[in-house]
Amino acid sequence: MNDIDTEKLQGIANQLRIHSIAATTAAGSGHPTSCCSAADLVAALFFGHMHYDPKNPHYHNNDRFILSKGHAAPLLYAAWAETGLFPASDLLKLRELGSDLEGHPTPRLPFVDVATGSLGQGLSVGVGMALCARLDKLDHNTYVLLGDGEIAEGAVWEAASLAGIAKLNNLTAIVDVNRLGQSEATAFGHEVGVYKKRFEAFGWRTEEIDGHDMEEILEVLAAVGLGTQPLVILAKTIKGAGISFIQDKDGWHGKALSKDEAERAIAELQPKAKTGIDVTIPAPSQLPAPNNAAPASCPPVNYKLGDSVATREAFGNALVRIGEADPRLIALDGDTKNSTYSEKFFKKFPERSVECFIAEQNMVGVATGFAARGKVPFASTFACFLTRAYDQIRVAGISQANLKLAGSHVGVSIGEDGPSQMGLEDLAMMRAVAGSAVLYPSDAVSAEKLVEQMAEKKGICYLRTSRPKSPVIYNNDEPFPIGGAKVLRQATGDKATVVAAGVTLHEALKAADALKNEGVGITVIDAYSVKPLAGEVIKAAAQKTKNTVLTVEDHYAEGGLGDAVAGELSADGIKVHKLAVTELPHSGKSAELLAKYGIDATAIVKKVKALG
Amino acid sequence: MNDIDTEKLQGIANQLRIHSIAATTAAGSGHPTSCCSAADLVAALFFGHMHYDPKNPHYHNNDRFILSKGHAAPLLYAAWAETGLFPASDLLKLRELGSDLEGHPTPRLPFVDVATGSLGQGLSVGVGMALCARLDKLDHNTYVLLGDGEIAEGAVWEAASLAGIAKLNNLTAIVDVNRLGQSEATAFGHEVGVYKKRFEAFGWRTEEIDGHDMEEILEVLAAVGLGTQPLVILAKTIKGAGISFIQDKDGWHGKALSKDEAERAIAELQPKAKTGIDVTIPAPSQLPAPNNAAPASCPPVNYKLGDSVATREAFGNALVRIGEADPRLIALDGDTKNSTYSEKFFKKFPERSVECFIAEQNMVGVATGFAARGKVPFASTFACFLTRAYDQIRVAGISQANLKLAGSHVGVSIGEDGPSQMGLEDLAMMRAVAGSAVLYPSDAVSAEKLVEQMAEKKGICYLRTSRPKSPVIYNNDEPFPIGGAKVLRQATGDKATVVAAGVTLHEALKAADALKNEGVGITVIDAYSVKPLAGEVIKAAAQKTKNTVLTVEDHYAEGGLGDAVAGELSADGIKVHKLAVTELPHSGKSAELLAKYGIDATAIVKKVKALG
Repeated sequence: MNDIDTEKLQGIANQLRIHSIAATTAAGSGHPTSCCSAADLVAALFFGHMHYDPKNPHYHNNDRFILSKGHAAPLLYAAWAETGLFPASDLLKLRELGSDLEGHPTPRLPFVDVATGSLGQGLSVGVGMALCARLDKLDHNTYVLLGDGEIAEGAVWEAASLAGIAKLNNLTAIVDVNRLGQSEATAFGHEVGVYKKRFEAFGWRTEEIDGHDMEEILEVLAAVGLGTQPLVILAKTIKGAGISFIQDKDGWHGKALSKDEAERAIAELQPKAKTGIDVTIPAPSQLPAPNNAAPASCPPVNYKLGDSVATREAFGNALVRIGEADPRLIALDGDTKNSTYSEKFFKKFPERSVECFIAEQNMVGVATGFAARGKVPFASTFACFLTRAYDQIRVAGISQANLKLAGSHVGVSIGEDGPSQMGLEDLAMMRAVAGSAVLYPSDAVSAEKLVEQMAEKKGICYLRTSRPKSPVIYNNDEPFPIGGAKVLRQATGDKATVVAAGVTLHEALKAADALKNEGVGITVIDAYSVKPLAGEVIKAAAQKTKNTVLTVEDHYAEGGLGDAVAGELSADGIKVHKLAVTELPHSGKSAELLAKYGIDATAIVKKVKALG
Repeated sequence: MNDIDTEKLQGIANQLRIHSIAATTAAGSGHPTSCCSAADLVAALFFGHMHYDPKNPHYHNNDRFILSKGHAAPLLYAAWAETGLFPASDLLKLRELGSDLEGHPTPRLPFVDVATGSLGQGLSVGVGMALCARLDKLDHNTYVLLGDGEIAEGAVWEAASLAGIAKLNNLTAIVDVNRLGQSEATAFGHEVGVYKKRFEAFGWRTEEIDGHDMEEILEVLAAVGLGTQPLVILAKTIKGAGISFIQDKDGWHGKALSKDEAERAIAELQPKAKTGIDVTIPAPSQLPAPNNAAPASCPPVNYKLGDSVATREAFGNALVRIGEADPRLIALDGDTKNSTYSEKFFKKFPERSVECFIAEQNMVGVATGFAARGKVPFASTFACFLTRAYDQIRVAGISQANLKLAGSHVGVSIGEDGPSQMGLEDLAMMRAVAGSAVLYPSDAVSAEKLVEQMAEKKGICYLRTSRPKSPVIYNNDEPFPIGGAKVLRQATGDKATVVAAGVTLHEALKAADALKNEGVGITVIDAYSVKPLAGEVIKAAAQKTKNTVLTVEDHYAEGGLGDAVAGELSADGIKVHKLAVTELPHSGKSAELLAKYGIDATAIVKKVKALG
């Protein structure tokens, strides 16, 4: 590292400051002061330390960089412009509709792996990437730049704990301790010792530095990877550093400088600024690329009609079956693997399994990290506990991450454990994620086929599985494309089309039998793909039953299957009646609860009879 | 403490074990081994240490106890039965539909303040209660019993950090370190030193003890409240302690003993068991009850028609206005108070304001703690960051907590900051919370009136506020009851009923003007109460426009206003067309984005014209 020109790096840092100020002033909004505090750190990483191919940000053995403090986006954009990836003049299009240099980073840009901007999420993603590098036998490092404000987020400590346990010495966190939050100073200001103690307690090696002293920065970076622990660099910085009339002042978070102020600031910085374009960036080592190709086929599904198998168990079977053929599959769980049945995969493929302990936010973040490196991660826990990670899931949607989630123990059908363990809002939650697929199998065959579909399809897919066993009703060769539905009962003169999924599908089939005995016919549809919904299939069936649909779901009445069907079909004049859980449920036996909350066969029969 | 009979307490602990085993075996499910590890701790707290009135669990100066490890519910139930609050024979009705002794604790029971069972949430609630006791000048202590597995949850460290910052020496956490999680051993087993370091780094006083040694337990409890820090007692325990053939064994989480096993276990414990019914529990001090009465009235709202005010700013104004009259009001924020405008309340009433820093899970948990003590807490941040706390909000729903949430910066109308800062799933998320009200004002007057309604109504209420300024369109005396809607434009021959809220209401009004110029009339409804929805109002209007409704919302198409209207009205033959955000949005100017995603006046005009 002796040949690194620290004066040049300081000059580049100032150039990054100038770009950040100019871009935010041009946009009329943004966070220039949050860029300035971290400019020396970023200059050192990008132009004096990290090994990567600046022409190919996706190269598999590049060092990875995650800007967890996503509001410093202009700084990141400036760094890549200074590598020569795109013209610096583009930076002035910051935040414009026509430019992908958005307010916070998104993977619309080739050098951004995951969206950031919801604070405290980057470290989990970094843990996933560092675990993935180890699995893929790659020697690059992963760097995560955090703000001091965001380390109040518990998710940071979930990530820190797992990194410590896994001894990720290929992971480095850098905390830009600039003392000032958005609305007031952080709780600890420049008392970096508090953070040092915390990271040490979570199993990290720590270094405290002056984040504006290039020599110090380079010295601690030179020791990255030493020892067996992850490293955190606690860098004491000044918010707005380099702008004499603004730095270290309250009230300057998320505020662009006026044109005059910007000119004044740039005039101060210009004499000390240097471009980075002519810096030779160290190349990454050339190591074989991991095999992240999709398999040609999977071993077949093998159940007997009438077998009694819980869909959650079929999920576990599917993970193993598909995992045999697909080396990209990774399983993650939050200490529920014996309930979600991901345990089957953990036992068979321990090297591709990550026990995240009871920390769902980090589990989803780690999975997103694996997805960003070409893997197909399946993260599982009880459906209700995925609510814990809704922000991470939401942001994975913005990342358009190839993330697979499986939530078990849905609805009142879980029985005795009571409402805190019942997933009753997961359909609403997962439907509202950008680009998501929401799948809800009713038997083992459909569950297995849907897991296959999830592995094949790019993007966020959610599988909703049930606790109770249910009979196998489909043949092993039945296909279950995402966006499809199955019409299971249909006859001329049917009174209504009953749309169900999961446990309520079996109730609907029982209701059809009971009604048939009374001379009333109903069409029964398995809406296993809640999003995208097979609207045309349901509509066509409904039109044969006087436009009358009855949805039945083991979910709250809001945002689930009923709303999905009504929201999609009511414009066509389809009348959608809903049966769903409409009050806070109680503990009890599964069948008792289905009856009490009006979603069992008896309730369906009663409702169909009452339909006009 | 010299007169405490430790042998008696050990006997009571064994009696609690017997009850826990018998109840779970009778139920056929549950977590007896998780009860046994904590039995000595609970016996010491309830029969040798805590000051409370066992006949009146709600007495305002009782010590509070939160079972954060909610799966040990039978132990809690057994303790209260042994105080004499209800007959011990009731314990055998555990988990039955007809008994409120549910699988995990809920406030259906008088001695449960908040639902638990989603792990890692209890400490935040405890922080809220301890802060509230300080505010109310009460001298009781708050005790939170946690499992070792759950302290992997980041929310625990968010709570720990705030407790340390606030120096809550009236808060004691007890960690039942029984070494075994659900699916495998915890990461640190019995290495209690790891937890000690962590809590110390977060500002706590720590004590390590043998959790089965009654002398040690009582000794550390005797020092509760000393010094200025919160106290954590790290108790090394054995899972299933007291059942010789099960204790400390893997594979016994969440499993009831068979009838034979239970008989054998009880036979082992019986000779060493004693009842607690004749123990005299120390009385709490008699201090004045806090004034938690609702005010008779609030100062009036005062805007001028046409004034340009953001609904988020009106929220801040309302907090101050109502806060003057209502001493129950508490404001909490996550370092966004200058954006949500809760800052106005923070400045006026600092003693009733809690800066939670960037830690939304804990913010919601702390607010739930205040609510459980009779306050009316308003917790605010960007709407999108409330997703971070969805599990806490879900569980607050189970608690039927009097929790008020305000989410600002909703939808694409925020503009340049980009998708990570846009609340686009909050309506879906909040509608699916048990018993919630979801409110979405379009101007300053309605925003203020809705905050008033929120303060008056018991239960979870969510206010959705917007970033841009919008004109005041209502008079100051206009009432906005929860569950209502306003018909703003209506004429005979209207082609469609346009249902909007927030920013899209103003777009709908513009569209109505534009269409009127072309000779097309539309009915415009302000659906400010998304849940409960004014279905009858909308239906009546729709029936006058050939059953045709068009919803327009700055939210994803799933689970929001459109689905709410369709889900409620399609059964009546109302045709609901939807305009909503249907793809992942980009950064850009507010008006550009409303146009690009098809929810502005132009889009409404176009859609209305295209309606058949």
